[in-house]
Amino acid sequence: MGSRVKEILSWYDGDNPGTRANLARIMNHGRLAGTGRFVILPVDQGFEHGPARSFAPNPPAYDPRYHFSLALDAGCNAYAAPLGFLEAGAAEFAGEIPLILKLNNHDLLHDSPDPAPAVTGSVRDALRLGCAAVGYTIYPGSAWCVQMYEQLREIAEEAKENGLAVVVWSYPRGSGLSKEGETALDVVAYAAQIAAQLGANVIKVKLPTPHLEQADAKKAYETNKVALEPLSARVSHVVQSAFDGRRIVIFSGGPKVSDEKLLDEVRAIKAGGGFGSIIGRNSFQRPRAEAIKLLGTIMDIYAGAAR
Amino acid sequence: MGSRVKEILSWYDGDNPGTRANLARIMNHGRLAGTGRFVILPVDQGFEHGPARSFAPNPPAYDPRYHFSLALDAGCNAYAAPLGFLEAGAAEFAGEIPLILKLNNHDLLHDSPDPAPAVTGSVRDALRLGCAAVGYTIYPGSAWCVQMYEQLREIAEEAKENGLAVVVWSYPRGSGLSKEGETALDVVAYAAQIAAQLGANVIKVKLPTPHLEQADAKKAYETNKVALEPLSARVSHVVQSAFDGRRIVIFSGGPKVSDEKLLDEVRAIKAGGGFGSIIGRNSFQRPRAEAIKLLGTIMDIYAGAAR
Amino acid sequence: MGSRVKEILSWYDGDNPGTRANLARIMNHGRLAGTGRFVILPVDQGFEHGPARSFAPNPPAYDPRYHFSLALDAGCNAYAAPLGFLEAGAAEFAGEIPLILKLNNHDLLHDSPDPAPAVTGSVRDALRLGCAAVGYTIYPGSAWCVQMYEQLREIAEEAKENGLAVVVWSYPRGSGLSKEGETALDVVAYAAQIAAQLGANVIKVKLPTPHLEQADAKKAYETNKVALEPLSARVSHVVQSAFDGRRIVIFSGGPKVSDEKLLDEVRAIKAGGGFGSIIGRNSFQRPRAEAIKLLGTIMDIYAGAAR
Amino acid sequence: MGSRVKEILSWYDGDNPGTRANLARIMNHGRLAGTGRFVILPVDQGFEHGPARSFAPNPPAYDPRYHFSLALDAGCNAYAAPLGFLEAGAAEFAGEIPLILKLNNHDLLHDSPDPAPAVTGSVRDALRLGCAAVGYTIYPGSAWCVQMYEQLREIAEEAKENGLAVVVWSYPRGSGLSKEGETALDVVAYAAQIAAQLGANVIKVKLPTPHLEQADAKKAYETNKVALEPLSARVSHVVQSAFDGRRIVIFSGGPKVSDEKLLDEVRAIKAGGGFGSIIGRNSFQRPRAEAIKLLGTIMDIYAGAAR
Amino acid sequence: MGSRVKEILSWYDGDNPGTRANLARIMNHGRLAGTGRFVILPVDQGFEHGPARSFAPNPPAYDPRYHFSLALDAGCNAYAAPLGFLEAGAAEFAGEIPLILKLNNHDLLHDSPDPAPAVTGSVRDALRLGCAAVGYTIYPGSAWCVQMYEQLREIAEEAKENGLAVVVWSYPRGSGLSKEGETALDVVAYAAQIAAQLGANVIKVKLPTPHLEQADAKKAYETNKVALEPLSARVSHVVQSAFDGRRIVIFSGGPKVSDEKLLDEVRAIKAGGGFGSIIGRNSFQRPRAEAIKLLGTIMDIYAGAAR
Repeated sequence: MGSRVKEILSWYDGDNPGTRANLARIMNHGRLAGTGRFVILPVDQGFEHGPARSFAPNPPAYDPRYHFSLALDAGCNAYAAPLGFLEAGAAEFAGEIPLILKLNNHDLLHDSPDPAPAVTGSVRDALRLGCAAVGYTIYPGSAWCVQMYEQLREIAEEAKENGLAVVVWSYPRGSGLSKEGETALDVVAYAAQIAAQLGANVIKVKLPTPHLEQADAKKAYETNKVALEPLSARVSHVVQSAFDGRRIVIFSGGPKVSDEKLLDEVRAIKAGGGFGSIIGRNSFQRPRAEAIKLLGTIMDIYAGAAR
Repeated sequence: MGSRVKEILSWYDGDNPGTRANLARIMNHGRLAGTGRFVILPVDQGFEHGPARSFAPNPPAYDPRYHFSLALDAGCNAYAAPLGFLEAGAAEFAGEIPLILKLNNHDLLHDSPDPAPAVTGSVRDALRLGCAAVGYTIYPGSAWCVQMYEQLREIAEEAKENGLAVVVWSYPRGSGLSKEGETALDVVAYAAQIAAQLGANVIKVKLPTPHLEQADAKKAYETNKVALEPLSARVSHVVQSAFDGRRIVIFSGGPKVSDEKLLDEVRAIKAGGGFGSIIGRNSFQRPRAEAIKLLGTIMDIYAGAAR
Repeated sequence: MGSRVKEILSWYDGDNPGTRANLARIMNHGRLAGTGRFVILPVDQGFEHGPARSFAPNPPAYDPRYHFSLALDAGCNAYAAPLGFLEAGAAEFAGEIPLILKLNNHDLLHDSPDPAPAVTGSVRDALRLGCAAVGYTIYPGSAWCVQMYEQLREIAEEAKENGLAVVVWSYPRGSGLSKEGETALDVVAYAAQIAAQLGANVIKVKLPTPHLEQADAKKAYETNKVALEPLSARVSHVVQSAFDGRRIVIFSGGPKVSDEKLLDEVRAIKAGGGFGSIIGRNSFQRPRAEAIKLLGTIMDIYAGAAR
Repeated sequence: MGSRVKEILSWYDGDNPGTRANLARIMNHGRLAGTGRFVILPVDQGFEHGPARSFAPNPPAYDPRYHFSLALDAGCNAYAAPLGFLEAGAAEFAGEIPLILKLNNHDLLHDSPDPAPAVTGSVRDALRLGCAAVGYTIYPGSAWCVQMYEQLREIAEEAKENGLAVVVWSYPRGSGLSKEGETALDVVAYAAQIAAQLGANVIKVKLPTPHLEQADAKKAYETNKVALEPLSARVSHVVQSAFDGRRIVIFSGGPKVSDEKLLDEVRAIKAGGGFGSIIGRNSFQRPRAEAIKLLGTIMDIYAGAAR
Repeated sequence: MGSRVKEILSWYDGDNPGTRANLARIMNHGRLAGTGRFVILPVDQGFEHGPARSFAPNPPAYDPRYHFSLALDAGCNAYAAPLGFLEAGAAEFAGEIPLILKLNNHDLLHDSPDPAPAVTGSVRDALRLGCAAVGYTIYPGSAWCVQMYEQLREIAEEAKENGLAVVVWSYPRGSGLSKEGETALDVVAYAAQIAAQLGANVIKVKLPTPHLEQADAKKAYETNKVALEPLSARVSHVVQSAFDGRRIVIFSGGPKVSDEKLLDEVRAIKAGGGFGSIIGRNSFQRPRAEAIKLLGTIMDIYAGAAR
């Protein structure tokens, strides 16, 4: 096994061999195998935003098998989706690509300023479908954060006891924060820390802006001269906030943007020591060949084969 | 077994053989056996609307045995009802027709803008009564949607582990939606997607209107030119929204209407690739002979024996 | 065993032999043994209304043994009471009279427009005390109806698995209804239907008035010419609403009234096909001898030995 | 064993031998052994009112061992306290005096008009500490009464299955009652009845005033001429309200008062057929020798050795 | 084993040998081994206040291993932290220093006047990580205090059954108290009593001010002449309030202050009979060498080797 993978695994010596083996499965799969870098395909937008908003731009994507195949052919490290999408392809693609079962989801037919996702799958589902990991979203800043943290605690304990890895989407949102604050540097760094303290093996956050949301935090950033620019410095601070870089932190692609903007972000993530990207809409909402090409370029940047 | 049934079963290779066998039982029963089309008799209106509103138009229907016998003689694929109604006939009609135990229900003696149904039966009840499937209603758009999705998750997991199939009634309702929005095309398609992601084997929705409810969805429908007319195109979009047609989607008959209107809807469902109809009030609220005749005509349309 | 009892038992072929045997125990006990008619003594008023309001009119009734003995000597089919009252006599009167443990209760020291009773006993209590059945009260129309239905579901499942019968007090009350609506014909019929759908073996409702509460129901009663008068016709409609008469429906005696009024009600219940009466305050709030005489007259009317 | 103890035990023939043995342990311990009368030392004021208010008047009482020793040397039937206090002395005083583990408690750092105590110990704690009984407080009249009754039901079931006795503090309080109503005769009698119906073996209430709180109850007291004076008549009515005297009812000492007032109350309790007193602040808030003397006098009154 | 350690252990004779052994492990570790005094390093500020506010003043502290090593080299009795921080070092430092897994935590991205922490770890986590104790925070005075006390009860029962010790952070906060009241002498003493009654083996409180918050308590302090000054007298009163000194009470260091102020507090704790200090921000927010020196001085004061 590559030395970088071994090094990363060494940070998880508090976990059992099963969980570490599943982390290794993800790190040793696809075009970035062995590099310790990640590009993951997540497809939960059908649930989170609705089917037409998600798949009408590229109708083959209505078919759950499309995403297994896209992730596989693009050389992603893993494919993450809710129960229904995984159930609909896990048998056909058994053993071909590491799967992450996303265990909670939220829809927009009833929305609220303090979002509370529903648990929509179980650790036992992940085991019977042959997954390498479970995923769970927390919304720090929501009035329901206690419920989410406690659900995650139970799920993570069960997942780890069964040798699965735990991926946490940590997305600040809710009445405790301003809209701008959701991606503020202090808030994103705090969200990464919370996920790490809750026992996440892999942490997914949004790219932070230079905004600082909380007055007491602002003071600490200023006093201690934490750099707010450029983006790579912010990435670096977030990675530091996740146990000084000893937890895998990957960054979210967000809504569909221009390729150049996306690639610039990837370059900043790499420069700042981020571990990779999780790219949904920017991949499955374009024609398959284009998506595979774009993902390939991203992977090349991470692998050092392109700039 | 018919090749269409085998094809449909192949979509459910994420489920265990028991669940697939029960789906096959339903598809291989009655006048539409082997066609992959469905006409199901559901009788939960005694609970949902009250006994007189439901059964006074045709008093023999007060007797629970009436509906077993109607479903059987009309050649329906299955009969769906709450615990009490099934307990009152399951022994007498044991083995004669596939049964679906509807596990949650709501009454009108206390109503609310955000409906929250009660769980009124269990998977163990379904097993002891010899059912082929359990049914569960979710109301996306209700403030209680999280509770419903999580209850469904638990019930579906237990049902599938025990080899039962899972039928989900997905009826958008509640403070998140306008009245018109409950049957809007974007909303019904979203409701079908949610049910599919939650692991439903069979999804029951209402026929959609061409209305579009949510602003962001509207934009997606317009940009991507999703057809809103005719009804068959809307049916087709809803079926596409349920995993590109790889989940069984059937449509609700709604309140008693003229036969011609009902048959037109059936023709549109068929033309749009819908899998069938679930017809309650339009069957049991008329004299038995008339109901059997009407259901026969509907089945003939689905089977291609009539237009 | 009498043929009427066998006929009634045949309606419960969805239940296991244990539950049917306990229904038979109740039907084969006391002065109405074998007739398929019921007079049951319920004493929960100490909890529901307070001890002085309940027992001061006839102080020997403070003693829990009084009621066992009254029910026994009057020839009632069964005696129903909360945990404490049954625990205080079950050993002394073991095997002498079928007992019904009432599993939820409500007191007036804290009242609310939407009553929520507390669970005050368990199925295991019923088993260890040698009961034939458990009793449970639902308040359709209360904002807490979902909680009550779900508690009843759990209790009924456990009771039936253990061979006990399930008696449901179905008393519409709460913010969903007007005061007059609590005993409206449509509402009482609906309450009987709900109890039956929830799996009740025996249903206890109040005698309905000719009032109709809900607009949509009113329309159905008028269109389909459901008779509102006399009282026996209303009884008949309620019995029909409980699975066309295939569930045992008994009627509540209510507050202490004149004997003649009470006997007239019994005559109407009998004429309408009701299965019997559950008579508390009208029996234990008068001297013992008088109570035994009155209950005897009631039983004679049900048995056809008096008019 | 004394015949009075045997007589009292005979009322509990619905309980298992273990529970009856523990009731006997309490009745056969201390200076009142064999009389069927009770003086119990309860010390939960550290939790309920705070340590300084409770123990500063007599600082040795800060030490948990003080109370074991006081109860033992004064000849009390039992000593009741929360988990921490019992854990801190149960080993040292193992087997020397019957213990009652008080399983729920409330503090004043956050108070509310509708008090909701916290469960602070378990039946398993009671068993491992060698207790004879568990204690539990209900507040009839509180908006949280349903939760308390249901918790008590679960705890009582588990306690009795394990052969422990169940002591219920039944203290009306909350938004359903006026301040004066908390000790009104109708309310205290109702509270005793509720505790008895919930399965309490021993019931602790406050001494009632002649006030009548609830209009419907008032009518019943007047119509049926229930005596409101003297105090002994009220005690007698409360005892009657607990199953006509077939449940052990003891009365609370309340805040520290003059000795003469306290002894007068004891005389009235005895005269009215009450079973005894539970005396906290009036014993441990005075010097040890004085307390032992006072408790001795009280016991002599109950035993008939003093007036 | 030192006689002071044996004496302290003797107070815990209500606990099993496993729990007492773990208390002994903590008392026999580090520079204060055998003295019965404690200096503990707690690092939960990453979760409670955010990573930059906590660690930017001394960036090596972002790394979870830093704190294990700091506690070890400074000679602390134990190191306490949330799940993530312990998981990230427990294997590397296995067996080198007693660990306390802090089982609940609260963050500031969503704050509220009535704080409700989330359970973020389990007793099973503590066991698999080789911890000597679990930690749990209660906020007496919060509207959520009942939930916290009941969670603590469950956790403490499970921890003690498994031979772990239980450390309770008892920090009055919430709508029941003024800001000044959070550290009022009566309130801190009450908080110590509550923790002790809930079964805490070790109690952590803040240093109290001479303020008195509650009117009834104030009266008791005045009547009984409880000393409010100097600080050592207040420490002494708090220790007395925890079972007359028979429970280990340690005091919180609070925000970073001048060394002299901190050492004065330590002198007062020692003089008042306090068992030690728990010092977070004052140790890990300064350079490592300085922190070790300061902690050494504190330990010398406790050990009597310095003044």
